[in-house]
Amino acid sequence: MYKLILVRHGQSVWNQENRFTGWTDVDLSERGMNEAREAGAELKAGGFNIRYCYTSMLTRAIKTLNIILDEMGLLWLPVEKTWRLNEKHYGFLQGMNKKEMVDKYGSEQVQIWRRSFSVAPPAIPLDDPRHPAHDIRYQSFPEAEAKPGTESLLDTTKRIIPLWENNIRPKLQECKEVLIAAHGNSLRGLLKHLKQIPDEEIAALNIPTGVPLVLEFDDNMKLVKDYYLIDEETLKKKIEEVANQTKK
Amino acid sequence: MYKLILVRHGQSVWNQENRFTGWTDVDLSERGMNEAREAGAELKAGGFNIRYCYTSMLTRAIKTLNIILDEMGLLWLPVEKTWRLNEKHYGFLQGMNKKEMVDKYGSEQVQIWRRSFSVAPPAIPLDDPRHPAHDIRYQSFPEAEAKPGTESLLDTTKRIIPLWENNIRPKLQECKEVLIAAHGNSLRGLLKHLKQIPDEEIAALNIPTGVPLVLEFDDNMKLVKDYYLIDEETLKKKIEEVANQTKK
Repeated sequence: MYKLILVRHGQSVWNQENRFTGWTDVDLSERGMNEAREAGAELKAGGFNIRYCYTSMLTRAIKTLNIILDEMGLLWLPVEKTWRLNEKHYGFLQGMNKKEMVDKYGSEQVQIWRRSFSVAPPAIPLDDPRHPAHDIRYQSFPEAEAKPGTESLLDTTKRIIPLWENNIRPKLQECKEVLIAAHGNSLRGLLKHLKQIPDEEIAALNIPTGVPLVLEFDDNMKLVKDYYLIDEETLKKKIEEVANQTKK
Repeated sequence: MYKLILVRHGQSVWNQENRFTGWTDVDLSERGMNEAREAGAELKAGGFNIRYCYTSMLTRAIKTLNIILDEMGLLWLPVEKTWRLNEKHYGFLQGMNKKEMVDKYGSEQVQIWRRSFSVAPPAIPLDDPRHPAHDIRYQSFPEAEAKPGTESLLDTTKRIIPLWENNIRPKLQECKEVLIAAHGNSLRGLLKHLKQIPDEEIAALNIPTGVPLVLEFDDNMKLVKDYYLIDEETLKKKIEEVANQTKK
């Protein structure tokens, strides 16, 4: 039996301000740090034996992971940081307020940009200083997808599947319990692949912040069970919060 | 030109209580966390372009590194954690109060255990639950030196030299600036090797906590310069503090 544990980073400063973040490197809010501590406490209480960790290249996910590992007394675990687990790139929407975008473009259009599987928001241009091509942390990756100006969830999923197949999956078979601290959309992309969720159903999948989601695989690496480490009622409240971010 | 930056972890809870720590996994004190933050601020102000990091398998060094990287906005850097950078194993002295040991064994004997190059304190036995052979974090390393019951500084140095030759040195040539967050004695061992300090002179070398020590190498990887990122007076005070830990 193998356990893959997914955690979406705790609330960031821009989550708090209801702004699109994407690849912008925004820090955790106080609440976000507390959510990470709670996730660590839940995992510790659950007796998990995590032996390897993955996270993105973005501060809010790395810090969530560090706080969880500190809480569990597992800071010594190996941690792999990869751009493939970064949030979906939100193109020109990055930095914009979600409700203001609804006012300007209408809720239907914004919902398409947020939740459509294959439509990407308009890109930020290559000469924009915020474009990942100018960010030192992505310089050493030759792949074009490591420096996107925008992404659809399909694009995000496409860069995550090779990571799953070539790295995480074999590591999970070797280590038995692996933790991933990442982002709403990169985890949605991974879950879509693992649970074979159809394109048209993925829009309805919302992942709450800071709640460990445990995926259990059998000896043949078949996904047999998945559950959040949280009671039903709190879970429902947290998921509604994510779904309501663009509601007027 | 290449820059290797060494930082000894900030004050730990047992440094504060004046106890021998060694491989015991003790957390940073509040003061230790502040020292790490200051080290990060100094490195940021100094315009360093660190591209790779090493640390030990012990919480106090890892946390020092994480705080420094957070302060510098560099949490995304790759970090390698290795038992080869662990503190010297202090054998049966681990957990003991330094001044009490002086009262019991005399300052000369304790000074030998603390600062002699080749004499190790008596070992903790293999069936002691505190022996590293029972610690999950060292299980995957086949080398006998990865699970010591005690060490002299010579033993510590012997496990660090291969890490320097095979890993850190080539990484420094590739990345130009490398940061190591580690421990008083593992850094003394590394410095002894790099500065070719004779066995009989190493006892006098004390490294202050939380102060970045910059080693500059020329294009032929010859060490040409080394300096602390701190003013002379504060440095002197900090070094005296370390030297005076066993003074009555």
